[in-house]
Amino acid sequence: MPKATFTILGCGSALPTKRNFPSAFLLDLREKQFLIDCGEGAQIRLRQMGMKTNRMGHIFISHLHGDHCLGLLGLISSFSMLHRTADLHIHAHPDLEKIMEVPLHYFSAETPFQLFFHPFNPQVNELIYEDRTVKVSSIPLKHKVPTCGFLFEEKPLERHLIREMIDFYNIPVSQLHKIKQGEDFITDEGEIVPNEKLTYENVPPKRFAYCSDTAYDESIVPIIRGVDCLYHEATFLEEDKVRANKTLHSTALQAAEIAKKAEVGKLIIGHYSARYTDQSVLLNEASSVFQPVIAGQDMESYEI
Amino acid sequence: MPKATFTILGCGSALPTKRNFPSAFLLDLREKQFLIDCGEGAQIRLRQMGMKTNRMGHIFISHLHGDHCLGLLGLISSFSMLHRTADLHIHAHPDLEKIMEVPLHYFSAETPFQLFFHPFNPQVNELIYEDRTVKVSSIPLKHKVPTCGFLFEEKPLERHLIREMIDFYNIPVSQLHKIKQGEDFITDEGEIVPNEKLTYENVPPKRFAYCSDTAYDESIVPIIRGVDCLYHEATFLEEDKVRANKTLHSTALQAAEIAKKAEVGKLIIGHYSARYTDQSVLLNEASSVFQPVIAGQDMESYEI
Repeated sequence: MPKATFTILGCGSALPTKRNFPSAFLLDLREKQFLIDCGEGAQIRLRQMGMKTNRMGHIFISHLHGDHCLGLLGLISSFSMLHRTADLHIHAHPDLEKIMEVPLHYFSAETPFQLFFHPFNPQVNELIYEDRTVKVSSIPLKHKVPTCGFLFEEKPLERHLIREMIDFYNIPVSQLHKIKQGEDFITDEGEIVPNEKLTYENVPPKRFAYCSDTAYDESIVPIIRGVDCLYHEATFLEEDKVRANKTLHSTALQAAEIAKKAEVGKLIIGHYSARYTDQSVLLNEASSVFQPVIAGQDMESYEI
Repeated sequence: MPKATFTILGCGSALPTKRNFPSAFLLDLREKQFLIDCGEGAQIRLRQMGMKTNRMGHIFISHLHGDHCLGLLGLISSFSMLHRTADLHIHAHPDLEKIMEVPLHYFSAETPFQLFFHPFNPQVNELIYEDRTVKVSSIPLKHKVPTCGFLFEEKPLERHLIREMIDFYNIPVSQLHKIKQGEDFITDEGEIVPNEKLTYENVPPKRFAYCSDTAYDESIVPIIRGVDCLYHEATFLEEDKVRANKTLHSTALQAAEIAKKAEVGKLIIGHYSARYTDQSVLLNEASSVFQPVIAGQDMESYEI
C-alpha cells in the first residue's frame, strides 16, 4: 500500500519570504497526486524537489487570491512544453476560468492535453470530486472572498479474505467480490455466515483536511472531525489577533483549537505571515493547546 | 559614484530547473533600478536576495512568452501589499496590457500606486525611455513572437572643473554649468579658453545591452557595438544547433560571435536550456570565441 503523504511546495502567506513560497501543496493518495492551490512558483518547487507529476490529474483551488493561484499559468505552460498528454482538471470558483481565459489563450493556446475547469460553489459543503478510490468535499471557510477548504477521503479498501474460512465454506469465486465488500455469505442450507468470520479489515482509509485561508470558524469542526491529518492556516500569533480578525486569518492558537475540537490525528500549520522570522513561536503557541502539531515547511513531505 | 550592476534573478529558459528560475533581471544604473523581464518567481528571488525595490520604477518586457512575464502579477500584487505608492511603469508589446487586464482587475483592483503601460513596437530600433541620466532603446531580435532586446545607456556625467584654472581665468559662477557640459570659455578680452584646459573627464558613461530571446542575428551588432557588457542568451550548445535554429534561440558559440563582432567589454550568457545539468560546457564553448565571458547565475550580481 503506497503511503498517503502531504508535500508542502509553499506554505508562506501573501508575501513570499526567503524560506516560504506562496501556498501550493501536493497530496499523494492512493497512487494519485492532487495539487492543492497553486501559488506562484509551484512548478519551480516541483522541479527543485525533482518531483514527477505524471500522476497529477486534478488541481483544487481554495480561493482566488493571487498567492493561491498565480502559479497555474506557468505550470500549464510547462506541462505543454513537457508534452503532457493526460487530461488536466481544475476545480475552482467559477471566476477562475474567466480570469484565465485571455492569458491561457495567449500563453498556452495549443496544449497537447485537454484542460477542464470544474466550477463549484465554495460556500456549500458538498462532494466535488469522486473516483474509484478517493473523494473530495468542499469545506466552506470564512475569508474575504469565497473560500473553501477540502476534505480528501480515501474510500475503504476491500476487506482481506480469510482463505481457510473461504475454503471451509466452499464459497464460489463469483461470491468473493461481494464478501470483500463486507457482505455476509449464505450457505446452500440457508445458514448466514457473518462477514467478520470470513474477512478481516484492510488498512483503514485515510482522511485529510486542508483549511486555508480562514478566520477561526468552529462550523468546520463537524466536517473535519477525526481526520488523520489537518492542515490549518496559522498566519498570526495570538498577540496579533486584531490583525488576524481584520484580515480573516487564524492565529496558531486558533488553528490548534480547531484541531482539538475536531479530534484530529495531527495538525500541520502553515501560511505563515512574513512578519515572523522565527516560526517556532507559532509552533509553540499551537502546541500549548493541541499535540501533535507540525510546523509545516516548504519542500517537506509528511505522512498522513 | 554608485556602481552599475546587473543582477540575475533568473537565467533559466522556458522550464525552470533546480538552479534557475525563468528570466528576470535587475539593472542598477545611476541609482535607479530597472527590471528587465519578469518571469515567474521574480518577486521570490528579490525576497530571497533581500533586495529593496524602492528605486524600481520601470519594467521592460522583451516579449510575451510566459517565462519572461508571468511574474508580473505576483510582483504587482506584492507591491500593493507592501503599500508601494510610487508609480510603476511597464514597457512592453501592446498586447501585454490586454492580457493582464482581467487578472489585474481581479487580483490587484486597487493598487495604492499608479500603474502605467507604455506600449512600443519591438520590431524597430528606437528610444523607448529617457530620463535625466539614462536612456533605453529597443533592439529588434529574431524570435517566434515579436521580441526585442534593450540597450541601456547612461548619459555622460558633467565634466570635473579644474579649480585652479577656473580661479585663474576668474570665471563667474553663472558660467560654470555650461563649462561642466563641455563648453569653452570666452574671456572679456575675447580669448577662447578651450574646455579641456578647464575641465577633465568624469567617469565614462556605461552602456549595457540585453539580448534574449533571439536566434543568431548580426543585424544587432551596430546597435550594441562597444557596450561595456552584453547579456546574450545562449540556450543551446552548437551540437544542438538544429534545435536552436528551429526554436529561434542561440548557441553559446553564436552569443560569443555576436560579442566578438560587436567588440563588447564583456559577455554574460544565460537562458540555459534545462537539458544541460553541467552549464560549464556552455561557458567553455563561448570562451573559445570571445573573452571575457561569464556564465550568468541566479542570485549573482555583476559589475558592468
